[in-house]
Order: sequence, then structure tokens, then C-alpha cells
Amino acid sequence: MTGDDDLAPVRAVEVARVKGSGVTRGMDAAATEEPLDVRLHGRSFAVIMRTPGKDRELAAGFLLSERVIRSADDVGAIEHCRHPDQRRAHHVVDVFLVGDAASRVPGMLEARRQVVANSSCGVCGRATIDELRCEIAPLEVEWTVDVAFARTLPARLRETQAAFDETGGLHGAAILSRTGVLLASAEDVGRHNAVDKCTGSLLMTPPASGTADAIAVSGRVAFEIVQKAWLAGIHVIVAVSAPTTLAIDLAREAGITLIGFARGENLNIYTHPERITTG
Amino acid sequence: MTGDDDLAPVRAVEVARVKGSGVTRGMDAAATEEPLDVRLHGRSFAVIMRTPGKDRELAAGFLLSERVIRSADDVGAIEHCRHPDQRRAHHVVDVFLVGDAASRVPGMLEARRQVVANSSCGVCGRATIDELRCEIAPLEVEWTVDVAFARTLPARLRETQAAFDETGGLHGAAILSRTGVLLASAEDVGRHNAVDKCTGSLLMTPPASGTADAIAVSGRVAFEIVQKAWLAGIHVIVAVSAPTTLAIDLAREAGITLIGFARGENLNIYTHPERITTG
Repeated sequence: MTGDDDLAPVRAVEVARVKGSGVTRGMDAAATEEPLDVRLHGRSFAVIMRTPGKDRELAAGFLLSERVIRSADDVGAIEHCRHPDQRRAHHVVDVFLVGDAASRVPGMLEARRQVVANSSCGVCGRATIDELRCEIAPLEVEWTVDVAFARTLPARLRETQAAFDETGGLHGAAILSRTGVLLASAEDVGRHNAVDKCTGSLLMTPPASGTADAIAVSGRVAFEIVQKAWLAGIHVIVAVSAPTTLAIDLAREAGITLIGFARGENLNIYTHPERITTG
Repeated sequence: MTGDDDLAPVRAVEVARVKGSGVTRGMDAAATEEPLDVRLHGRSFAVIMRTPGKDRELAAGFLLSERVIRSADDVGAIEHCRHPDQRRAHHVVDVFLVGDAASRVPGMLEARRQVVANSSCGVCGRATIDELRCEIAPLEVEWTVDVAFARTLPARLRETQAAFDETGGLHGAAILSRTGVLLASAEDVGRHNAVDKCTGSLLMTPPASGTADAIAVSGRVAFEIVQKAWLAGIHVIVAVSAPTTLAIDLAREAGITLIGFARGENLNIYTHPERITTG
């Protein structure tokens, strides 16, 4: 992905749509997810996974929330990077402060120095994808599962969501073996936490039988969910709702089959459909 | 909130339910949101906003995702804090690593030192609530709005969500004046980003008429959304789905009217219902 393709809020992605016993190959529209580098006086302050568009406004609002700025009076300029050699300049916003806010910048940058270094592990998508590519091999998967198995996962997850029933306010995740054994499940206000609780549970108490083959998640799938599945060696992700572009890109790279909009008999396979058999 | 009340995944909260022209006071169940302090060898490594339960598993999965640990072999012990003077010991998990992973701990803690310092601004709930209480006064609000106005907000938001219609994968936010003027709107894969884009837009380009009185958000409302609204001086939050316990606590403190499950004629008012008139 180079040039302006990654600037639109929506990107066309390949999909294999399963409806009943039929499979149709076609295109779908996915929400774009790309890292934005917010720089203060030319140095990285934070990397935010975001949908491109209103990047300058995002930087301003983010700095307001972080209390780096208090009002428009603190802001000299907010603009996209203009460096001709910066290939991803459209994913970099330079912020220049004035007055007292400007005098606080060196201290704030020093305080964030290690934050940015760390965020290249878990937040900054592009850096992380490159890093994962080096450090972790794509998953090698020799098994296939029938689409009937994939269809059961949302219901299996739903059975574990006791607190959601009460509040409507909790995300859920469940890890199963390819034979359908429920190995771990968790609920949390944070969708990432629900996944971490499941993978952490299996790390602390390895299952007596069966391996962590598939994970079902409520809601949407962004980059970080795929990253967590990859690190846990999980080969199939089934989500009730939509994946982002970066989730799809990373799943393809990782060798993970990513399924979205799994509802009733229907589901969309976004990556590695060869692992799902129908019939 | 002391003792064990904040350990259950669900907490009873007061609510004023509006259905048609009727208002019923009662109780609702909200998903618990509380900060968890993950410590490595006794020192804070990260603070995670989470729903209590499976805290040790969450810590293990989080450290796996952050690549602090690679397998169970790296872990000596994961346990809740046992310090008798630590009032929030049940919100602290101590992790002790062994072998090579243990030898890397000092370096990792140094790298995270400033992360934790920073997270007290935007992530660690309790620290932030105390901090906000000191730094920012509760909003003083002298106006009321009719429930009919609140009911219009989800539809006003929906009109702005062009990309959601295509993908089903984007959150939306919209800020309006009390007279119903749309001042800012945005879509993003990140719910927080959508809000930041709106508040940043108003900071960069103050509206010619009308003030930022109300914000409508798709999905759920956790602590950070309320914090962002407070910092932007917004008095009314209308969400399509559920609020967390910490969102409710902070909104009450801030003087913000927090409305959830705004669907058709029905809505739930969780804080400061005196600002909403019915009739």
C-alpha cells in the first residue's frame, strides 16, 4: 500500500461470502485503519491507530485530552508533514505550540520518549507489522475446518457471556480447539482485555487436551486483536462484526483465517479462505 | 467505593428510564470498569482499564501481547498484591519473572517509567479522577433541554455516518449546540478518535454561533469518553449503547448528564436527570 490508497476512510477488500451452502468471491468495503504519528516540534509524541481524515483535528483533540494544550491560544500550527523524503508524510502531523505551552514541549517529549519507543510494539501498526514479520514466522497451518464449525463459534461465545446479558456493555472472547472444545472465555469492557484474559488463561493453565486453534470475538476486529491472536498461535478468528483494513492485512501476513460478520448461516471470509471447507 | 463492591463484573446503578412521556426511577446493571495496576517485580509496569475478574490471566495475556514474556517458562508467580496497607490491593497484580525474562525486567521498567507517569493522565482511572477533581471544576450548567432534544441526537449522529453505512466498522461522534446546530462530526475505527476529531475541530475552528453543549456517540461510553467531554466543556452525552460504572461515576462528578441506550423514544438517564425536562 503506497501513495494515496491508504488515505480514503474506506478501502475495497477481497471477500469470500458464505451464504447457506454457496460461496461467492467478491469485494467488500472495510474501514481504513492506519497509524498516525503526532509530532511536537518535529519529534514523535504519540502514534495513534486511526481512520485517515481530519488528522489535524484528531491531533488537536488528542493533545487537548492529554492536556498538552488547553485552548487554541496554545497552538501555533498543526499541519501534515511536508518533508519530501517522508514516504508516509500523509500519516504524520506536525504540531507547533506557542507561549507557555511551547516552553513545556521539551519536558513533555522527554516524558514521552519511551512511550513512543514502546508503542512501536503494540500500537504503531506499520512498525509493528515490519517487526512481527522479522520476529515471528507466519503460522503454519495444515488443517482445515468445515464452515459448519465456524458458524457455531458466535453461539459458543454467546453462551459464555453471562455479564453481557445483564449490561449490554461487555465484550467477550472465547478460544476453542478445532474440535470444538471450549478452552478459555472472558468478558471485559475492553475488547483487547477479553482476548488477553483468554490467552493469559491458556498460558497459565495449558489445556489438558486440544490446542488453541480458533478465537471468537464480539464486535469488530482491529489490528491489535489479530496481533494478539498471532502471538498466541491462533489460526482462525471469527468476529460478529467488521474487520479493519489493517486487521485484514496483518491476518493475511500471519497466515490467519479472518472471518467477519458471522451471523446465523452467513459469514465473510477475508483471508486464507482455503482453510475453510464448505460441504 | 471501597471494599469488594468494585470487584463484581456488574454493579447496580441508579437510572431514570424515559419511555414515551413517562419517567421511571429505578436501578440498572452497568459493566464495572476499574483500573488494574500490573506490576513487574513490585514496580508499576502498566495500568489497564478493565472489568474485574481473571486479573491474573489478564496480566499474563497482556505481558504476552507486549512480548515481555514468551511462554509460561518465563513466569515465576502472578498474584494479587498482598500488602496489608494497600487499600486497592485487589486492583494490583504482582508479576515475578524468572530466567532471562527476569534479567530483562530492570530495562523494561526503565523503558516504561514515563509511560506509567503519563498513563495517570489518560488511562489510570482513579488517579485521573482525583487529578481532574483538583484541576478542573465540575461544569456549571444552568440550562435544561427537553427530552425531545435528546431523542433527536442518535438520528442526527446517524446522518453524519457516511462511511459506517459502507463498512459497518466505524464509530461516530457528533457535537451539537443546545438548539440543535451540528457543530462537528467525525467517524473513526477508534471511538476515542471520533470524539477527539470533533473536539479538535472546534478548538481549531470555533463555531460562529452556538456552543458545544451535547455530544452523541455510537456504541458504549467508558471512562475516557466522559473525560474528553469534560475537558471540552460538554454537558450532555447521549450514547446509543451502555455506559460503564466509571463513566457514570465521572459524569456525576463532572456535572455531565449521561444518557445511554438512546433508541427511538426510549433512553436511560444515568446522571443529573434534573437537566432533562419531560413535557
